[in-house]
Amino acid sequence: MTIYSQIQFPTLLLDESKARANIRGMVEKARRGKVFLRPHFKTHQSAEIGEWFRAEGVTAISVSSLQMAQYFTDNGWDDITIAFPVNIREVENLQTLARKIHLGLLVEASETISFLTNNFSAPVDIWIKIDSGLGRTGLHWAYFAEILQLSRQIQDCASFHLAGILTHAGHTYLAPSPAEVCNTYTESVQRMNMVRDHLLSSGISDIKVSVGDTPGCRLAEDLGKVDEIRPGNYVFYDATMLQLGVCKSEEIAVAIACPVVAIHPERSEAIIYGGATHLSKDFFKNNGDRCFGLVALPTENGWTAPLTGAYVRAVSQEHGVIRLQPQDLAKIKIGDLVCILPAHSCLVVSALHHYLTLDGRQISTINEK
Amino acid sequence: MTIYSQIQFPTLLLDESKARANIRGMVEKARRGKVFLRPHFKTHQSAEIGEWFRAEGVTAISVSSLQMAQYFTDNGWDDITIAFPVNIREVENLQTLARKIHLGLLVEASETISFLTNNFSAPVDIWIKIDSGLGRTGLHWAYFAEILQLSRQIQDCASFHLAGILTHAGHTYLAPSPAEVCNTYTESVQRMNMVRDHLLSSGISDIKVSVGDTPGCRLAEDLGKVDEIRPGNYVFYDATMLQLGVCKSEEIAVAIACPVVAIHPERSEAIIYGGATHLSKDFFKNNGDRCFGLVALPTENGWTAPLTGAYVRAVSQEHGVIRLQPQDLAKIKIGDLVCILPAHSCLVVSALHHYLTLDGRQISTINEK
Repeated sequence: MTIYSQIQFPTLLLDESKARANIRGMVEKARRGKVFLRPHFKTHQSAEIGEWFRAEGVTAISVSSLQMAQYFTDNGWDDITIAFPVNIREVENLQTLARKIHLGLLVEASETISFLTNNFSAPVDIWIKIDSGLGRTGLHWAYFAEILQLSRQIQDCASFHLAGILTHAGHTYLAPSPAEVCNTYTESVQRMNMVRDHLLSSGISDIKVSVGDTPGCRLAEDLGKVDEIRPGNYVFYDATMLQLGVCKSEEIAVAIACPVVAIHPERSEAIIYGGATHLSKDFFKNNGDRCFGLVALPTENGWTAPLTGAYVRAVSQEHGVIRLQPQDLAKIKIGDLVCILPAHSCLVVSALHHYLTLDGRQISTINEK
Repeated sequence: MTIYSQIQFPTLLLDESKARANIRGMVEKARRGKVFLRPHFKTHQSAEIGEWFRAEGVTAISVSSLQMAQYFTDNGWDDITIAFPVNIREVENLQTLARKIHLGLLVEASETISFLTNNFSAPVDIWIKIDSGLGRTGLHWAYFAEILQLSRQIQDCASFHLAGILTHAGHTYLAPSPAEVCNTYTESVQRMNMVRDHLLSSGISDIKVSVGDTPGCRLAEDLGKVDEIRPGNYVFYDATMLQLGVCKSEEIAVAIACPVVAIHPERSEAIIYGGATHLSKDFFKNNGDRCFGLVALPTENGWTAPLTGAYVRAVSQEHGVIRLQPQDLAKIKIGDLVCILPAHSCLVVSALHHYLTLDGRQISTINEK
């Protein structure tokens, strides 16, 4: 229990061996499926953890902001896609970066290409962002005419290389079953290929298809006719992924160690120091209740499987309310630590700035204070 | 539009004059009600903004963590209550702090007092945390016997000063109307006075009553028979407070300036760079929909009133989806900024690390990188 004895406040624990196994698993899957793996680093946000990917042969990455792209460039990555629609207010810094590395940008609007044509002269890969069903952003997959027009507009600018079409089928996160995750993934890939076929038939060739969401990439037996996948969450997984049937509980590689500060046996609940500023306010629905995380207990080398029926019922700024079965509540006392498997690991990393490995090493992130 | 022209990515704007007016308003209300004001600094988390309170005569504060207490101690505050149940794993640093300043701690469990009796010898104020109806934590207000027993246990230790009983009636945030906020506040104050009367009749005297939540403290015409109030959110207010009828829109002192990156006229939505990592995932329900913030537009000296019918419908890690009325959507284009009035200002400050005032000055917080 060495690392636990030193922990005083909410602390993000990382099981390195689980994370490395998760990293390796996706590398092997991509290799078997003969697709290029460009993992999304917005989940871990750490240069050191990035090296664990490099050790498995990963050479190119996705990020979700210019700041992350700059951070990973400073840490030796030279092939980065910013998987977020271009923010033209950052054009100067984007251009500076494009002169340093092989940069990929996402565009979905003609106005953005017009702006870049006039204000961006560095060589850059442009991906057309397609909405393949999620309904968040991107050109709708069935708007063939608009997609073709945008492709031609991109090809008209000498410094732009039209790399392909890209989507995030994040509605797999809402699928009611693993089978539905696979159906959603497959449908999204089919739609992307319809777009590609349409472009090909209109004379636009060399169009790559990039997809990526952890549920689909993990569960689909066949990754299908895609050139590139960009999953990110799988490095750690989380309680949402477990609930969806995407991972096993023993694959979840992060937990937040939280001190118990009060116990309420009459409602079978305990209060932990660990609230929205540590766990985020993300939740999934579990039997109609909001679940902000699952509850495990510390062990000598990590943490137990999540306790049956136990969950984080509510969070405020610093408080978490955990509900446990009475026999489990009886095992904990004020001053103990519990290990929360978060609803959403990406947001926890943004909130907690660094990791503590199970052998007591601190690993920094882009969010380090 | 000077400050807007320099903004490239999601930026937390602060209207200093509104914040100072909000600070002054509560000081005056406390003075009229003859109660001591110990504002909660977990909302703004900034030494510089703390000085704006000091300029209005505030001498004592509440915070929600030891780290915040240390930060404000380093910035000249010497009377601080950590308004969170004592985390006994931090006992050494708590004791160090109690030797420097007038420190107040919250306790609700006999086990915690037993632990402190054996491990904490510095002079300290102890407040008994009471659950006056919220149901989060604290000793239930009707558990008179337990409260009396805990009071005696505290008084038995020479270095502890039983300061009084303390509650956070945060269920005012769930009240359906301003009138119900006032009823909830009044009921909570009555319950606290029943506890005090019971203690008095049992020979425990000099028991102060401390309450505090922004909705109740703002709306209650009569603050009632309390010694101290500890509201925090009122320094900025937010969209949740506006929706509750606690503040006017022109009193909201913070907004997040977010670049527009895509526009979807067919669903009357735009995509902004501004997601869960900037706005948090906190929301309130508005006509059954989740609302993560309201939408205003930049003006020369700040921002407009929130646009009618406009709101942040969804957030993911970096994306926000805003829904606007078509005539308002027609006014914005890719690359413009919109100003989001957040659902919960406290969590936005935790996420964004510092403020930019309307005259272009950066104000740091405890979360500064």
